[in-house]
Amino acid sequence: MSQRPRVVILGAGFGGVNAAKVLGGCAADVVLVDKTNHHLFQPLLYQVATAALAPSDIATATRVVLRHCKNVTVLMGEAVGIDPDAREVRLEDGARLRYDYLVVAIGSAYSFFGHDDWARHVHVLKTLDDALKIRSALLAAFELAERCEDKAEIAPLMTFVVVGGGPTGVELAGTIAELSRTTLARDFRTIEPRSAHIVLCEAGPRILPSFPPAQSDYALRALQNLGVDVRVGAKVGAIDAGSIQIGAERLQSSVVVWCAGTAAHPASKWLGATAASNGAVRVGPDCALPGRPEIFVIGDVASFDGADGRPLPGLAPVAKQQGLFVGRLLRARIDGRPGPKRFRYRDYGMMAIIGRSRAVAQLFGLRMSGFVAWLAWSLIHLMLLVDFRSRLTVYVNWSWAWFTYGRGARLLTHAPRWIARARGKARRDAA
Amino acid sequence: MSQRPRVVILGAGFGGVNAAKVLGGCAADVVLVDKTNHHLFQPLLYQVATAALAPSDIATATRVVLRHCKNVTVLMGEAVGIDPDAREVRLEDGARLRYDYLVVAIGSAYSFFGHDDWARHVHVLKTLDDALKIRSALLAAFELAERCEDKAEIAPLMTFVVVGGGPTGVELAGTIAELSRTTLARDFRTIEPRSAHIVLCEAGPRILPSFPPAQSDYALRALQNLGVDVRVGAKVGAIDAGSIQIGAERLQSSVVVWCAGTAAHPASKWLGATAASNGAVRVGPDCALPGRPEIFVIGDVASFDGADGRPLPGLAPVAKQQGLFVGRLLRARIDGRPGPKRFRYRDYGMMAIIGRSRAVAQLFGLRMSGFVAWLAWSLIHLMLLVDFRSRLTVYVNWSWAWFTYGRGARLLTHAPRWIARARGKARRDAA
Repeated sequence: MSQRPRVVILGAGFGGVNAAKVLGGCAADVVLVDKTNHHLFQPLLYQVATAALAPSDIATATRVVLRHCKNVTVLMGEAVGIDPDAREVRLEDGARLRYDYLVVAIGSAYSFFGHDDWARHVHVLKTLDDALKIRSALLAAFELAERCEDKAEIAPLMTFVVVGGGPTGVELAGTIAELSRTTLARDFRTIEPRSAHIVLCEAGPRILPSFPPAQSDYALRALQNLGVDVRVGAKVGAIDAGSIQIGAERLQSSVVVWCAGTAAHPASKWLGATAASNGAVRVGPDCALPGRPEIFVIGDVASFDGADGRPLPGLAPVAKQQGLFVGRLLRARIDGRPGPKRFRYRDYGMMAIIGRSRAVAQLFGLRMSGFVAWLAWSLIHLMLLVDFRSRLTVYVNWSWAWFTYGRGARLLTHAPRWIARARGKARRDAA
Repeated sequence: MSQRPRVVILGAGFGGVNAAKVLGGCAADVVLVDKTNHHLFQPLLYQVATAALAPSDIATATRVVLRHCKNVTVLMGEAVGIDPDAREVRLEDGARLRYDYLVVAIGSAYSFFGHDDWARHVHVLKTLDDALKIRSALLAAFELAERCEDKAEIAPLMTFVVVGGGPTGVELAGTIAELSRTTLARDFRTIEPRSAHIVLCEAGPRILPSFPPAQSDYALRALQNLGVDVRVGAKVGAIDAGSIQIGAERLQSSVVVWCAGTAAHPASKWLGATAASNGAVRVGPDCALPGRPEIFVIGDVASFDGADGRPLPGLAPVAKQQGLFVGRLLRARIDGRPGPKRFRYRDYGMMAIIGRSRAVAQLFGLRMSGFVAWLAWSLIHLMLLVDFRSRLTVYVNWSWAWFTYGRGARLLTHAPRWIARARGKARRDAA
């Protein structure tokens, strides 16, 4: 039997994959476990949901990403528990994975503020499957509306609600508006796709609350110019099949996407660890679990206090930098060298895109709005994507589609059953 | 109310879409009905099934294809019956579509020679959804094998059977072999993807029975060089979950793809029409139903006697040419001009590809094998695809992936539930 230490990494997101990359070629056996077979470039997932990109444009088989790390084994599977005393991870089929070091990087889920029944009626946007379901739901709504004989059914079908005014909600609402205003505009004979009603609702006083107020104002106006009905201070009261209560109004809507309220994966319970208010595992300055120096928790599932004393946000760069840090730390420890002791987040800034040529950004301390911010967004994502895929052709394709307003990924897969259900639902709502 | 005649076209395959294109701008209202929202380039569907192409590479929204035909309305829906006396089509939701002229182009289904229970255990390859299910099944088999603790479970998981030695079966078996021999070869740590067992079985005495015997021999040797276990004169006796009886042997197999036995869509019953042995509707020399000059039946669902007295094969070029013919005939009739009276099929030849650089072809009377045939295949599909998509970038992307042996579409979507089921099944088989 091998006397090499065994590192188990849970999750193939930005945290897990970067940790595994750093550990490639070191004197340890590394096992990376993920529910899916691919590493996902999540910042562009909303573009798959709105038919601008194909799934394979933003996802790569995890095995391909880690092909050259011969000491890394990738397993497709789902962790369902951790036994910290036995140093074992339990998988969904009952198998147990022994570890010497464990890196927990399994991300976050959505929180419905105690209304878990809402989950049945809304879409979320975490995985490729989620994005494909939203894409099918949006495209099917237009297809169903085109067939409506009762004109009163059309407006509810063509009403789309995005809940949550953070970057994802803003990007999604803006892109759905463009889908209806440009891509689909000429392709229907009975309905007018431009008349689709897109609602973005945010419970707080302004959208993009993590940005400065001036940028929130800019984003609000840019969305309104795209025809998005932005509602701030608008609390969601109830959601059922086909309708949503926003403030005092009951709105009929065929597609509701939930981009509000993120909760960490409930791994804190598995670990018996102290959790922050959002359920994330509180970790020490080296990303390790207090009292368990062999267990590291990184990315969205971790609560790490930043330089200002507040927990770091649940963003891809945080997960990526923590993954690289833990990889280096473990590599040093396995080699018996002194390693880094303390994780420090380098905050390069944040960005949100609002449609084709508008964005807000804070980069290296600079605040930008409008076309300049959009250009910065595009260049940075170009670099990240090329790094991610090493394939310039993907970006060429994407730019082409982006600039011509065409969307090559307008495909309704798994449609027949879906559309039948949707139709039944539309009828029940109408009754 | 409009006094313009109304043409209803059922099916957005090569027949239906080409008929609609010809009718674009004429003095009639045209309604095209299809179950899906896209027109599919079916000759390359096997490449989606084997992760070489993404769905959006070979499918385009039907609305986009017919965008400039302002008199054509596209409806996503499913025809469930025809009432020829009332001149109405019934749709799945009870709606009725009145027509003055009807074009039936709804293609074919698979026939299991009376063993309809086999359908539950095999994959077929007609739609994008079918192709995505095969892709997930193949990729998941390797993922499950990599996790097997009991080494005896690995061989059944990595055994793939293709039933039917026609062009689709040959192309699919060859590409699955390449998937395991090249694309996946370096990416696993426990299993050896090259050891996957790919079986192609054909009940007749040789594969590619519609080609000359010398080309069948060439294809057989080319497949054997790729490591495909080709079995001719091999009848399938039974299929259940996880195994298939081929001749006297019972073979454990995780994925069986059925490419044998095509049957026409049962539209002949709706029409009360005379059917050929495969269920296709027998039509006259103008593709019209005898006694019903307003109903045309084209493509795989039609049985049309060719110049040699035998029915034309169920191929894309036949459907396309018949669609163009019926479009021209109807256009002339609507304009009150004399139109074409008799459909004549121009047979440019046929081709089958066997892996990366081998093919057999008969083009313009010439017989080709090997690299020359493969080059011809590539150039012809380049022209057809560019015509189809008007997007050279797709082909650039595709060539790139093809020549580098990489496959960008190695994505397991809808995986977690699937893999759980597959695992349960694998366990039951082992028990």
